Amino acid sequence: MRNLNADNITAAVNEQFAGCEDPRLKTLLDGLVKHLHAYIREVQPSEAEWTQAIDFLTRTGQMCDDRRQEFILLSDTLGVTMLVDAINHPSGDPLITESTVLGPFYVADPPQANQGEAIDWGVEGEPLFVEGDVRDAQGEPLANVVIDVWQSDSEGFYDVQKPELDGASLRARFTTDDQGRYAFWTVTPSPYPIPTDGPVGKMLELTGRHPYRPAHVHFMLMAPGYETLVTQVFAENDPYLDSDAVFGVKDSLVMEYAQRPAGQAPDGKHMESPYRYLRYDFGLKAS
Amino acid sequence: MRNLNADNITAAVNEQFAGCEDPRLKTLLDGLVKHLHAYIREVQPSEAEWTQAIDFLTRTGQMCDDRRQEFILLSDTLGVTMLVDAINHPSGDPLITESTVLGPFYVADPPQANQGEAIDWGVEGEPLFVEGDVRDAQGEPLANVVIDVWQSDSEGFYDVQKPELDGASLRARFTTDDQGRYAFWTVTPSPYPIPTDGPVGKMLELTGRHPYRPAHVHFMLMAPGYETLVTQVFAENDPYLDSDAVFGVKDSLVMEYAQRPAGQAPDGKHMESPYRYLRYDFGLKAS
Ligand SMILES: [Fe+2]
Ligand SMILES: [Fe+2]
Repeated sequence: MRNLNADNITAAVNEQFAGCEDPRLKTLLDGLVKHLHAYIREVQPSEAEWTQAIDFLTRTGQMCDDRRQEFILLSDTLGVTMLVDAINHPSGDPLITESTVLGPFYVADPPQANQGEAIDWGVEGEPLFVEGDVRDAQGEPLANVVIDVWQSDSEGFYDVQKPELDGASLRARFTTDDQGRYAFWTVTPSPYPIPTDGPVGKMLELTGRHPYRPAHVHFMLMAPGYETLVTQVFAENDPYLDSDAVFGVKDSLVMEYAQRPAGQAPDGKHMESPYRYLRYDFGLKAS
Repeated sequence: MRNLNADNITAAVNEQFAGCEDPRLKTLLDGLVKHLHAYIREVQPSEAEWTQAIDFLTRTGQMCDDRRQEFILLSDTLGVTMLVDAINHPSGDPLITESTVLGPFYVADPPQANQGEAIDWGVEGEPLFVEGDVRDAQGEPLANVVIDVWQSDSEGFYDVQKPELDGASLRARFTTDDQGRYAFWTVTPSPYPIPTDGPVGKMLELTGRHPYRPAHVHFMLMAPGYETLVTQVFAENDPYLDSDAVFGVKDSLVMEYAQRPAGQAPDGKHMESPYRYLRYDFGLKAS
């Protein structure tokens, strides 16, 4: 293993992984070396470009903390996240809700909220009532499904991006009732740019890409015996539906956030001002 | 750009880079997306594996600071660094010294030292006298070439790995004299493991790879009108010459670190104890 050149180094590296006792890890690393080397051989980076790449990756890692995950943003904006999603959740059965990217703003174990409760703690915006139900692939309602919800405010910011905010907002956990139903009040989300103050934002800027995502509400549904569903429901007519910076839009996830006049809302509440209404029914796949 | 699946997402991502006004950056990113997606399609990572990969990259970045560059280690141990080196410095002319990896321990602007000076500041070990000359591809000696030298001590540690050390050691800058000569006293370096307390060390451990490099002295040679040469001179008969953890060994860079008895050294110095002697003559390529 000396005098390695561009033609024989890939085999030499894979040879070093020959003693790996975990066959799956060996497959993942052998494949990584093969494809990474093929990329290098194709684009022939200069040493200065290699140094820039090392620096980019380093800064991407250093940007990460409890409230920021820049490597997820990188995976999202290069289409890797949606590719992994497509491989793991091929679409097919129209009764099963399609999945899309998790994004960098999910926070585990959000505050528990009650059926119909408002989650617009500490924020203002156009009221939005969201409701629907959760069913299995046979159309039977599923009770006790845990639904984590999170979204941006009307200016496009998540609670974790607003240090002035005390605690969670527009982020909560619901549980479906015995007829599989869920409902909550929130504010209408806005299209927003993914965070652009890090290396990924710079990459988008240098390549002439915009950082925007169409307005959406995130959902994660969890129930024993079913695959966890990570998805989003997008707003119809949003200007960014066909150029989502993270490639996450699917037609089955685009819905009307319907404008409703002041008056009695679907849950019986009297609204003094106009509001919006979104209904989305989910279908879970047995695991 | 909706309803993307494993078959059409790569084209959709490349389409988003269509507006990039820097053609080289576009080539680098289009190629990255193509090869990265091909890798994902081949190994079909689960979502848990994708999460582990994101976490690995994040921790690799977070391990980096002024004294530690874990992404260079990752590039080195996957053979990427040597591949980039092979592409940029194809071997050919036997009068031109071959290059190898920079490694993570180079520090820019080391202390200037005088011809023949000892650089074993604050460390102990078997004395080693190193000398040689620097010539161009026609064999003409080159004066005023800047030579940065750095190496591990006899236990395998660099100065930057030893917080107890006050300032640089086994690390210095020399300048060739009017006959192209350089010379210095140091201590004999040892084989050493690359740092194993980070994600890269864990990767080596999980795949059954050892982290060792054969003993070597690093050199970087800089002169106006010539390509900067980054290389290492390895010790003959080292047990790790054929399994270098970073794939950097070339036969033309392996030399005898000759054992010499006590007595008069080549520079006239009287040695009370046995010492070692290394001669290496460099050839620089015109830029
Ligand atoms: Fe989002
Ligand atoms: Fe080294």
